[in-house]
Amino acid sequence: MQIPESLERLIEEFSKFPGVGRKTSQRLAFNMLHYTLQEAERLAEAIVEVKQRIRPCTVCFSFTESDPCPICQDPTRNRAIICVVEQPNNIFPIEKSGVFRGLYHVLMGAISPLDGIGPDQLKFSELRRRVENEEVTELILATHPTVKGEATSLFLQQALAGKGTKITRLARGIPAGGDLEYVDDVTLIEAFSGRQLFGKLEQYE
Amino acid sequence: MQIPESLERLIEEFSKFPGVGRKTSQRLAFNMLHYTLQEAERLAEAIVEVKQRIRPCTVCFSFTESDPCPICQDPTRNRAIICVVEQPNNIFPIEKSGVFRGLYHVLMGAISPLDGIGPDQLKFSELRRRVENEEVTELILATHPTVKGEATSLFLQQALAGKGTKITRLARGIPAGGDLEYVDDVTLIEAFSGRQLFGKLEQYE
Repeated sequence: MQIPESLERLIEEFSKFPGVGRKTSQRLAFNMLHYTLQEAERLAEAIVEVKQRIRPCTVCFSFTESDPCPICQDPTRNRAIICVVEQPNNIFPIEKSGVFRGLYHVLMGAISPLDGIGPDQLKFSELRRRVENEEVTELILATHPTVKGEATSLFLQQALAGKGTKITRLARGIPAGGDLEYVDDVTLIEAFSGRQLFGKLEQYE
Repeated sequence: MQIPESLERLIEEFSKFPGVGRKTSQRLAFNMLHYTLQEAERLAEAIVEVKQRIRPCTVCFSFTESDPCPICQDPTRNRAIICVVEQPNNIFPIEKSGVFRGLYHVLMGAISPLDGIGPDQLKFSELRRRVENEEVTELILATHPTVKGEATSLFLQQALAGKGTKITRLARGIPAGGDLEYVDDVTLIEAFSGRQLFGKLEQYE
C-alpha cells in the first residue's frame, strides 16, 4: 500500500520535529485523520500564529509577544541581578520555582568551537553592554551543566570579570529526590567537594 | 514568566496528539520558534490538506485519496481473500512485509462494550455484505492480540461462520528476534500449545 501523497508529506513535516522519528511521525499523521477539518485548521492556525506573533525580547532575548517582554517591563523585579541562560525555555522552570526575582539574559546557545559557535554567534556583546551600562551587581550563570555550558560560563566569567559585577554560578550537587545509586561520578565529586556544614555551628565548637 | 498566549495555544494543540504530554508538547512548540514563517506555513498547509484530500475507501475503509483505494482497484490482487484489520494504519506493516496479496477490510475499531462499541459502531455490516455478495474463499482475522481484538475476532468468527468462507486468524507465538526472557506468559502459553514439529517428518517415524 502506497501511503497517500498528502499523508506522506505530513509525515515528512512531523518527522522534522525534535525527537520524532519515522514511526512517531506516522502515528501523529494518522492521528490527524481523526481530526475534523475544523480542528485541523485550528492547529494549522496556531502554528502560523506563533511564528507571526512571537519575537525575541530586544533586552533579554527571551520569547515575547510584547517588546520588551513582561519580565523586563515588570517594575517589581530586581534589575540589579541578571540570570544568564542558554535558551529562552530555560527561563520557565526558574520562574515556576519562584526562587528568582531578577532579570534574565538569554545567550541563544552555548559556545561550541566544533560547531563554529563562539561568543560572536551568541548574544554576548548584548550581555556585556548590559553589564557595562546598567547597574548590575550580580550575574548568575545558569548555563547547562554540560561541556558546552561549562565552557560558556568559563568564558563569561573571564570576559566579564573586573567590571564591578559579582559573578556567581548555580550550586552543583545531588538533586533533590534523586537516588544516590543513580548519581553520576562528576555530580558525586562536586557534591563532596562542595559539602557544607550541617546543623547548628555551636554543635561543632 | 507567563508563556505568551499564542505559544500556550500551540502547546495545548500539540498536547492533544497521542502520547504527547505537557513537556513534549512544550518542546515541540518551542521548536516551532526556530522555523521560518515559510516552514511553519508549509506544515500548516500539510495538516489541512491531509484532512481535505484523504477519505475512507468506500469498499475497504482504508485511507485513500482516490476511491476505491489503490489496493481495491489493483487487478493483480487476489480478490477471494480478505484480511480484516482494526485500523487503516494496520495495513502498512502487512503491505511492507509483502506476505499478503489479497484485499483488506478495516473495521475502524474493535468491539468494546465498556466504551459502547459494538458491531454496529464498526464496519461490520459492510464486511458481512462483502462476504455474502462477493466470492470470498478466506477471511483472515488480523485484529490486535488484545482483549478487545480477541473479542472482535471471536464475534466475527461466530457471526460469519457457515457462509461458505473459511475463517482463519494469524498464528500466535514468540516473535522473531525476541528474547525469551522478555516474552510474557500468555505468549509463552500460546507458543507452547501451538508448537509444531521441527525437521523432516521421516525423522520421527
